[in-house]
Amino acid sequence: MSVVKSTLPEADLKVVGEALQGALVDLVDLSLVAKQVHWNVVGPRFRSVHLQLDEVVTTARLHSDSVAERASALGVNPDGRSASVARSTAIREVPSGWIKDVDAVRILVDALGVVVGRMRERIEATADPDPVTQDIIIGLTADLEKHAWMFQAESE
Amino acid sequence: MSVVKSTLPEADLKVVGEALQGALVDLVDLSLVAKQVHWNVVGPRFRSVHLQLDEVVTTARLHSDSVAERASALGVNPDGRSASVARSTAIREVPSGWIKDVDAVRILVDALGVVVGRMRERIEATADPDPVTQDIIIGLTADLEKHAWMFQAESE
Amino acid sequence: MSVVKSTLPEADLKVVGEALQGALVDLVDLSLVAKQVHWNVVGPRFRSVHLQLDEVVTTARLHSDSVAERASALGVNPDGRSASVARSTAIREVPSGWIKDVDAVRILVDALGVVVGRMRERIEATADPDPVTQDIIIGLTADLEKHAWMFQAESE
Amino acid sequence: MSVVKSTLPEADLKVVGEALQGALVDLVDLSLVAKQVHWNVVGPRFRSVHLQLDEVVTTARLHSDSVAERASALGVNPDGRSASVARSTAIREVPSGWIKDVDAVRILVDALGVVVGRMRERIEATADPDPVTQDIIIGLTADLEKHAWMFQAESE
Amino acid sequence: MSVVKSTLPEADLKVVGEALQGALVDLVDLSLVAKQVHWNVVGPRFRSVHLQLDEVVTTARLHSDSVAERASALGVNPDGRSASVARSTAIREVPSGWIKDVDAVRILVDALGVVVGRMRERIEATADPDPVTQDIIIGLTADLEKHAWMFQAESE
Amino acid sequence: MSVVKSTLPEADLKVVGEALQGALVDLVDLSLVAKQVHWNVVGPRFRSVHLQLDEVVTTARLHSDSVAERASALGVNPDGRSASVARSTAIREVPSGWIKDVDAVRILVDALGVVVGRMRERIEATADPDPVTQDIIIGLTADLEKHAWMFQAESE
Amino acid sequence: MSVVKSTLPEADLKVVGEALQGALVDLVDLSLVAKQVHWNVVGPRFRSVHLQLDEVVTTARLHSDSVAERASALGVNPDGRSASVARSTAIREVPSGWIKDVDAVRILVDALGVVVGRMRERIEATADPDPVTQDIIIGLTADLEKHAWMFQAESE
Amino acid sequence: MSVVKSTLPEADLKVVGEALQGALVDLVDLSLVAKQVHWNVVGPRFRSVHLQLDEVVTTARLHSDSVAERASALGVNPDGRSASVARSTAIREVPSGWIKDVDAVRILVDALGVVVGRMRERIEATADPDPVTQDIIIGLTADLEKHAWMFQAESE
Amino acid sequence: MSVVKSTLPEADLKVVGEALQGALVDLVDLSLVAKQVHWNVVGPRFRSVHLQLDEVVTTARLHSDSVAERASALGVNPDGRSASVARSTAIREVPSGWIKDVDAVRILVDALGVVVGRMRERIEATADPDPVTQDIIIGLTADLEKHAWMFQAESE
Amino acid sequence: MSVVKSTLPEADLKVVGEALQGALVDLVDLSLVAKQVHWNVVGPRFRSVHLQLDEVVTTARLHSDSVAERASALGVNPDGRSASVARSTAIREVPSGWIKDVDAVRILVDALGVVVGRMRERIEATADPDPVTQDIIIGLTADLEKHAWMFQAESE
Amino acid sequence: MSVVKSTLPEADLKVVGEALQGALVDLVDLSLVAKQVHWNVVGPRFRSVHLQLDEVVTTARLHSDSVAERASALGVNPDGRSASVARSTAIREVPSGWIKDVDAVRILVDALGVVVGRMRERIEATADPDPVTQDIIIGLTADLEKHAWMFQAESE
Amino acid sequence: MSVVKSTLPEADLKVVGEALQGALVDLVDLSLVAKQVHWNVVGPRFRSVHLQLDEVVTTARLHSDSVAERASALGVNPDGRSASVARSTAIREVPSGWIKDVDAVRILVDALGVVVGRMRERIEATADPDPVTQDIIIGLTADLEKHAWMFQAESE
Repeated sequence: MSVVKSTLPEADLKVVGEALQGALVDLVDLSLVAKQVHWNVVGPRFRSVHLQLDEVVTTARLHSDSVAERASALGVNPDGRSASVARSTAIREVPSGWIKDVDAVRILVDALGVVVGRMRERIEATADPDPVTQDIIIGLTADLEKHAWMFQAESE
Repeated sequence: MSVVKSTLPEADLKVVGEALQGALVDLVDLSLVAKQVHWNVVGPRFRSVHLQLDEVVTTARLHSDSVAERASALGVNPDGRSASVARSTAIREVPSGWIKDVDAVRILVDALGVVVGRMRERIEATADPDPVTQDIIIGLTADLEKHAWMFQAESE
Repeated sequence: MSVVKSTLPEADLKVVGEALQGALVDLVDLSLVAKQVHWNVVGPRFRSVHLQLDEVVTTARLHSDSVAERASALGVNPDGRSASVARSTAIREVPSGWIKDVDAVRILVDALGVVVGRMRERIEATADPDPVTQDIIIGLTADLEKHAWMFQAESE
Repeated sequence: MSVVKSTLPEADLKVVGEALQGALVDLVDLSLVAKQVHWNVVGPRFRSVHLQLDEVVTTARLHSDSVAERASALGVNPDGRSASVARSTAIREVPSGWIKDVDAVRILVDALGVVVGRMRERIEATADPDPVTQDIIIGLTADLEKHAWMFQAESE
Repeated sequence: MSVVKSTLPEADLKVVGEALQGALVDLVDLSLVAKQVHWNVVGPRFRSVHLQLDEVVTTARLHSDSVAERASALGVNPDGRSASVARSTAIREVPSGWIKDVDAVRILVDALGVVVGRMRERIEATADPDPVTQDIIIGLTADLEKHAWMFQAESE
Repeated sequence: MSVVKSTLPEADLKVVGEALQGALVDLVDLSLVAKQVHWNVVGPRFRSVHLQLDEVVTTARLHSDSVAERASALGVNPDGRSASVARSTAIREVPSGWIKDVDAVRILVDALGVVVGRMRERIEATADPDPVTQDIIIGLTADLEKHAWMFQAESE
Repeated sequence: MSVVKSTLPEADLKVVGEALQGALVDLVDLSLVAKQVHWNVVGPRFRSVHLQLDEVVTTARLHSDSVAERASALGVNPDGRSASVARSTAIREVPSGWIKDVDAVRILVDALGVVVGRMRERIEATADPDPVTQDIIIGLTADLEKHAWMFQAESE
Repeated sequence: MSVVKSTLPEADLKVVGEALQGALVDLVDLSLVAKQVHWNVVGPRFRSVHLQLDEVVTTARLHSDSVAERASALGVNPDGRSASVARSTAIREVPSGWIKDVDAVRILVDALGVVVGRMRERIEATADPDPVTQDIIIGLTADLEKHAWMFQAESE
Repeated sequence: MSVVKSTLPEADLKVVGEALQGALVDLVDLSLVAKQVHWNVVGPRFRSVHLQLDEVVTTARLHSDSVAERASALGVNPDGRSASVARSTAIREVPSGWIKDVDAVRILVDALGVVVGRMRERIEATADPDPVTQDIIIGLTADLEKHAWMFQAESE
Repeated sequence: MSVVKSTLPEADLKVVGEALQGALVDLVDLSLVAKQVHWNVVGPRFRSVHLQLDEVVTTARLHSDSVAERASALGVNPDGRSASVARSTAIREVPSGWIKDVDAVRILVDALGVVVGRMRERIEATADPDPVTQDIIIGLTADLEKHAWMFQAESE
Repeated sequence: MSVVKSTLPEADLKVVGEALQGALVDLVDLSLVAKQVHWNVVGPRFRSVHLQLDEVVTTARLHSDSVAERASALGVNPDGRSASVARSTAIREVPSGWIKDVDAVRILVDALGVVVGRMRERIEATADPDPVTQDIIIGLTADLEKHAWMFQAESE
Repeated sequence: MSVVKSTLPEADLKVVGEALQGALVDLVDLSLVAKQVHWNVVGPRFRSVHLQLDEVVTTARLHSDSVAERASALGVNPDGRSASVARSTAIREVPSGWIKDVDAVRILVDALGVVVGRMRERIEATADPDPVTQDIIIGLTADLEKHAWMFQAESE
């Protein structure tokens, strides 16, 4: 059953579909990672980091919706189920238990670094097959790089 | 490192902590399931179901935050990481690909039914050890049962 | 045709269903009574009482919706039709024609007193069979008792 | 006790007062009927009809207030008590229990049809004695006819 | 210099222009009278009357703008200068100094009564020459009669 | 297929339906004309006229929706398709290319003059068959005449 | 009857009371003058001047309320009745009929100039007897001088 | 008269100007088509489709303004007059009369498909001559493709 | 530890610091007194006085924050602890238990009278040493005198 | 004078009244303590702690109003006067002068710990005599425990 | 000290960093130039130009923040100090003193023309090294070109 | 060309004009300095300082507009051009490159200290010649001293 007719040729669609599915997994997991740290962070900078993490969650949720709906709009089924996310995410698992604020910052620098790296590859991959998708990924990468700067700026 | 001092005795805390951790996993997965169906649903009732699912997502996200922060407030570490969610959720996995609107409704009836059943047990379990936690779970169960009614009312 | 499957056993459901149906009738009639007085009140305190009555209407409408939807969520059909309300309400009928402000206050003290008394019984009745329903009735009783205080405080 | 001095001669006032009292009863009962169906509707179109009915409730409540306050402004006592509404309404009683969505639509087509018909007569009756009252009834009839169109447009 | 071309024949325009100019003077003076009482009222009902008067001011200012701009739209120059208002108003002058709350209510009942009476004449006068202007005067008369009811309802 | 049952007798419906269809075409074209000038106007008064034109667009769009939905509510199919509008509009076609601000003002004075003239006829035509429709046309004519005044007031 | 006890000695109160009464008359008349020009202005700059005048009205109304309530707070009865305003205002009467935009600007430059000049004197007069009143007059003078600048800046 | 100096060389400007003019016509007609169906749709899904169509109207109006103003900013005169739109649109004319909901969905799938196809060509055409214009067309294409997905998802 | 460097010479700072500390105590206690009466007032004017008192609370809380932060800004430690307030307040203690509305008004007239008297002295005292602080106290005194007028105006 | 009739038997009322009065004193003092630290805190984390404290103030003020009005609604006079608060509070007095940020955090951990402990006892005490009151105290305890967690999480 | 790790290779970073630094200086100076003219403009079109200039200020401030934070996000230090801006800006200095409205328009046409020209070069320069930065500059250029059109359209 | 006529004598105007021009330069540069640090700050307190600096920017921009428009209102040309600001500012230049958070705080303490000192002199200088201008400078100094306190409170 393929109800939505893609506006792209098959080969292009494959490249674009993979980019969007990869971006979806990364963004859903980023939202879960940021929430996990948001709840478990401790230390003198608790409040500042706690609030900052919720802004990452907001960004990640917003863009996960954009890329998933973009996939659907192209006729590709997005997969954001917990098992799929757990299996495919490139973000290293956050340790359980309380997380010191300095570690929280470092975890986010790492997670954002990994996700931004993969998004950069997707920008390149989608440029020719679908500039509309590329534009969406460019936009979310700008937001992620801004978050990455802020966590780097406050890492010790 | 145990930074937050619980206001409950050890035995009570164990019961309450498990109830909150269970509720957290159920709610995070409910939010992911509802989004998955939100993106992949098709059929004449697409728009109605698509919008309704986002209201479930909003409810699930709001309450997952409440129960996770309640756990932290009691000195128990909440665990909402993708792998933990995938491993512990009681909601059956949604099939991949397009989902017909009648199936979407049925999936939600089932998922909400399972989660509500477990929440009912948690209401009973937390009554004595911590009425504050119980009140939070009572509140979110009312919301989930309202969503459950609506999906049942429109199932065919 | 019983489309919504109750999460409660039959016996409990009967008790809870009666409590909700009784609350619904009381709240719908309270909204009509408060509007009737709102339109017909006269006297030096007209404006103050006229405005205060609309706050009672808002409270009664809000909670009549909550209890009716709670009934539906449990698989019990709420009945808020005019004939049912006229037949089952416990609030004494307001006299027709202009109502002096002091009488308006007394009418509300009486009406709220009757409704609160019956809600108190419902809080007790629903405690065991369904703490979720009980919590909703506790919440609306708090609001009604606040209105009751205010009308008592200004009665002469 | 006749505290508000009418600006109309006695004979005109009688005609206008009856029109307003009739409109009040119809609108209050319309709000109760629409809420009753809002709570008890089931079927594939549940969500759409459920939401649409609340818009009818909003319209009916808004205009019932306008006509009741218009009556008071002319020195005529509005009567919106549950017993009066139950006794005088021209809308056929809604059956108790769950209501299928197709039946819900038909019930509203009928109820709105009856009310619009009576409002049309009131527009004619009030034209000469009080163009101010007529203008209010013209305005609410426009709103009711718009709702009537929408339910007709979706009836099967 | 007659820059705005009227859409009405000369004779009709004269009637309509006089109605609008008369309405303008009444409404501007009503706003000044209500403010004067708003500032000088004293007595146990001070706060209630003080607030109620500002609602009259809001109504009077809103509608004075409507009728003045309606005049301009027909090519008739509105005149709302203080000297013109002082000279042509039909409202009796408010006494200087503190005004007891019961007197304040009586002053408003009188002022609104006078203005409403004149507006009723204007509704009749404008019906044939310009139904658009009539509709504006009908709308503002409804508002003024509502204020008049409220002050009568609280007069002792 | 005639799904919406008119509340008017056949002969009245014909008159009212033509008035509404004519009004719809005029208002849709007015919105397109005002946008065309909004985009192409030049001259020292560019900004003022550019902004003013968007207020005409807002008015025209709002009322085109009202008259079209009024037609549907009466069971008459509104026709606002581009070809129908182009064929039936009474507004003279705007020249292509840049439009000087003084010309822009004159174009709007003319367009509004033509439309107001036709609306005046529709007010008369609908008075007897349907005062509800007439009330809608009276209301929009008031708005159009206000715009017409403003453009006349600033024409050179 | 002197219900409000002044916090100032008699002599100071006289000076301050006169300053406030003078300011009240000037501000009420300024609001009427600005509205009069707002309704009657014509010319290429119509829209700009029309809108700008309403900002003067807003300022004048806001501050007339402040100074009148300040007078009451000191136990001095403010007098803003139309006859009092017409008799005591220092602003020259605006001519009747259409007003060209260049004349409109000049009228406002003159009116604001006169009012500002008198306010400057009141700032000096109230400095010693009541710095609280002075602060209010300083604040409103700043606003009036800003309006005065803008009309001067655009006068030809 | 060429008042706005383009920042592009002549040849590039021609390509870009044609892309923008084509996009303008398509978007204006899309807004008229969506409104036509919005008013005339009937069937069980009436309400859902009726609301969804207004979102298409909002999108089409927003972007028609963007492309028209982009044309002006480049010194090219946009042409959105009804006759031009009727003559140049690529969207097939909607049949007159009531439109069944399933047909309404199909009409939108077709219309959006045609417009998206042409926008894709414009993205390619404008890439080199003006990446600023291209970025605007990429953005609106993303929105149109999202609407296209939703109508496809609910087509039967 | 003196972390904030004052911008004032020592002698001036002492005067200004005492004025601010005195103002802080008066305003904090005024907020507590107004709340106490807000909760315990009874009588026919209950609602009006109850609402009016909350406006005093809002004013008192707002300005207590301003004066405390002004003290900190000058390097003086504000002291708003309950024991300090209880010990230093100049407002007479409110009797416990229900308070009749006429007494409530009198209590506020007295409390505001005392506080305004002391603020007047602080305006004088701070004029030379710190016009910035004086300006803050002038502003809050205007607000307090407005409240004082209103309670006087309604005292019997 | 006992104007408000309690809905509880005497013995229950005594228990509930004491719980509410105790909660009121704790919450009022908590609001004063949090403001005191808000104004006097210094150190590198000044801004973060300063903002966080105002959220405690907001919580404490909101709930002090709820418990005081709940007491009144039961016919028990709440006592929130400064002397009563100073005498009965269980929170240790904050030292005067600047407060280092680490000390500020510790002070709040202690204050919230004490208040939460007492609230826990009140939850138990009110369970049987008045579940409505208990529900209010449960709700505010959840909020206080959340604040307590956050200050513990950031204590060093 | 280089705290933020760039995601770009050194050579690309140099190009992108220069583009961003150049854009920052241009945008900061544009905001200062627009404010300077906003304050000093005179002439019949004063109000229109004065308001329009503040929209340029808003645009320039918004985008100066975007490009500066983009630079930081790439690890390049933005320099928006007054001396740097004064030294590096490409916008010609505005003459001191009053500026006639026609000159104001010309000044903005020139300033926007210069800045747009340089932005066009930066779009080209950044295309390969960093499409994310390019997208930001494309977006702000669209806004600047829209402002440029408007000032050209009204230049004489 | 001196279009705006000052309301002050020449000598006073000179003093006041210099005070306003000086204040303008200081405030514009303060906004640029605060933005520069906002973009370049790094260190553990990055987020807190970054946000706090934007509040300084908001304050500085708001008041720079007030003083510039006050100058114009007096007929004195404000000069806020980048070269003038760079030449006349009293704030020491911020070093280029990353700025550690502790240094950022120190830079702001210094900058605010210098500006406040100069504002204090302007308050004195303008007291006699123009109390209206003085009031504006008093108000902005209060805001600057509040910012100064906060940065001092968090400096190490």
